[in-house]
Amino acid sequence: MATNRRIVLASRPSGWVTAENFRLETVPLPPLADGELRVRNRWLSLDPYMRGRMNEGRSYAAAQPLDETMVGGTAGEVVESRHPKFAVGDQVVGYLGWQEYGVSDGSQLIKVDTRQIPLSAYLGAVGMPGVTAWVGLNRIIEPKAGETVVVSAASGAVGSVVGQLAKLSSCRAVGIAGGEQKCRYVVDELGFDACVDYKRGDVGQALKAAAPDGVDGYFENVGGEIMDAVLPRMNAFGRIALCGLIAGYNGEPIPIRNPTWFLVSRLKLQGFIVSEQMHLWPQALKELGGHVAAGRIRYRETIAHGLANAPAAFIGLLKGLNFGKQLVELD
Amino acid sequence: MATNRRIVLASRPSGWVTAENFRLETVPLPPLADGELRVRNRWLSLDPYMRGRMNEGRSYAAAQPLDETMVGGTAGEVVESRHPKFAVGDQVVGYLGWQEYGVSDGSQLIKVDTRQIPLSAYLGAVGMPGVTAWVGLNRIIEPKAGETVVVSAASGAVGSVVGQLAKLSSCRAVGIAGGEQKCRYVVDELGFDACVDYKRGDVGQALKAAAPDGVDGYFENVGGEIMDAVLPRMNAFGRIALCGLIAGYNGEPIPIRNPTWFLVSRLKLQGFIVSEQMHLWPQALKELGGHVAAGRIRYRETIAHGLANAPAAFIGLLKGLNFGKQLVELD
Repeated sequence: MATNRRIVLASRPSGWVTAENFRLETVPLPPLADGELRVRNRWLSLDPYMRGRMNEGRSYAAAQPLDETMVGGTAGEVVESRHPKFAVGDQVVGYLGWQEYGVSDGSQLIKVDTRQIPLSAYLGAVGMPGVTAWVGLNRIIEPKAGETVVVSAASGAVGSVVGQLAKLSSCRAVGIAGGEQKCRYVVDELGFDACVDYKRGDVGQALKAAAPDGVDGYFENVGGEIMDAVLPRMNAFGRIALCGLIAGYNGEPIPIRNPTWFLVSRLKLQGFIVSEQMHLWPQALKELGGHVAAGRIRYRETIAHGLANAPAAFIGLLKGLNFGKQLVELD
Repeated sequence: MATNRRIVLASRPSGWVTAENFRLETVPLPPLADGELRVRNRWLSLDPYMRGRMNEGRSYAAAQPLDETMVGGTAGEVVESRHPKFAVGDQVVGYLGWQEYGVSDGSQLIKVDTRQIPLSAYLGAVGMPGVTAWVGLNRIIEPKAGETVVVSAASGAVGSVVGQLAKLSSCRAVGIAGGEQKCRYVVDELGFDACVDYKRGDVGQALKAAAPDGVDGYFENVGGEIMDAVLPRMNAFGRIALCGLIAGYNGEPIPIRNPTWFLVSRLKLQGFIVSEQMHLWPQALKELGGHVAAGRIRYRETIAHGLANAPAAFIGLLKGLNFGKQLVELD
């Protein structure tokens, strides 16, 4: 236990992320100070927001610094502790980044109970992605029973929870996803009412059939042509929770071609970032934990193995190659 | 008093409205039924929303029918009444359209007091445009003291009230208007803190100087390049009240080029239509009336004379040739 392996940002991508943007390093393990503890990470969470952090310049969060450990959510086990509230063997989730061992002063680290919920789920449906779904749906879309809720990237870690929560609120849930396999999963396994395969062509027409009463709430993870196709289908007083714009993460232009819909249909569009809504996390996590433990919310994981494979897995996530929550399981 | 003159929609415009889209007709005055009253219109209100009504197809309101009297707000005097609540001589505002005489059953018609407020102001600052400003500002932007509020079409009937109400809420008020004369009026006569002349070039740069602390609330009447220039200047958690998109009224494309700002800055954009917020009108009109009577809200009118000149005045309004509220005074 004398060394730690980590992945740092070696260079900033221009356009698509490549493996060369990362570097695997072996570094000495620092000694613990009083009040600190050491975690052996078991799971790394890979999430689309990391792509934004890799850019320089103004965004809602500080840019990921060059030559430092990639940011990211983690789940693991306390292996050494000089902190009064954490003991060796505690299962914890936090933001220790792409590395095997992390040091924490206990802040932003929470102990979790893995008796009914697997540790990795605290990075997915019972973690940041789940809370993201919960906040966007319940605090921006605020669905009423009988309404129709549409979500893009529907088979992903966030989208899958959005649709299942919408169903639990007695709404019609319609997904948008890429490919027949993902669409079948969204309907057959997650219980959405319908799913539009955006790779099959005219999303607007397909949505007309999938949401025959129009769209009251839209949870947007993608943007670009997908949003253009959804806007004309929005009902009066529709609400759009803007969570991500993955279509533009590489700098592609993703204009909203016809903003007149916002006026004609009196729509609300609201961007949000879940880490700014910390006061909502306890309630959201309690509900999500209950749903997952009871089998009311299901999820799927795509698991890469070993720290060295994290960059390739992240690149795959940005290309939509994952299926459900993308994780890295550390050896 | 045996005939009425009116202007009907003769054809739907493609692109810019032309005089040929209208037709002046002389028609017989219908007799009054029990419960009806006749108004001699003194003032016609001309408003940008009418351009939308002239199109066919789905919008928030029914299209203006061909060969029928143009819709529109009016102010005038009761000249004949078989209605128990209205007497000859009453000053009233309503929606009797582009004609000299209108018949009403009393619904959507309100008696107004012209002792402290001139009749025409009930079509402007103390009427639909004023309430539009009040609702967008107070119910969507919800400005806090010390914040910066920007409004496009700032010298217009709506925009001028937005900025003055923002000042009354202890905000920094910044206008965007076309031409030096309008900008000078906005600052010198209406008391805005600054005004950006969009005809002078880079709106984004000018806005940086005019709103050095960024923009917290944006009241949008225009859209297109103006909105593109404002979005990057919005502060985190900024609110945008979407009232009009006059830049696109002739079918011009007005994309929002970089919607990433909604996410990065966690913005809220909300479209609204003031006629759907009737419950807010009494409070808004009371406040606006008080401000106008006391001289705290000022306004300017551009007055065309005679019914026959209404089409030309309306075309001028769409081109920004008016200055403040565009009215037609009937002979």
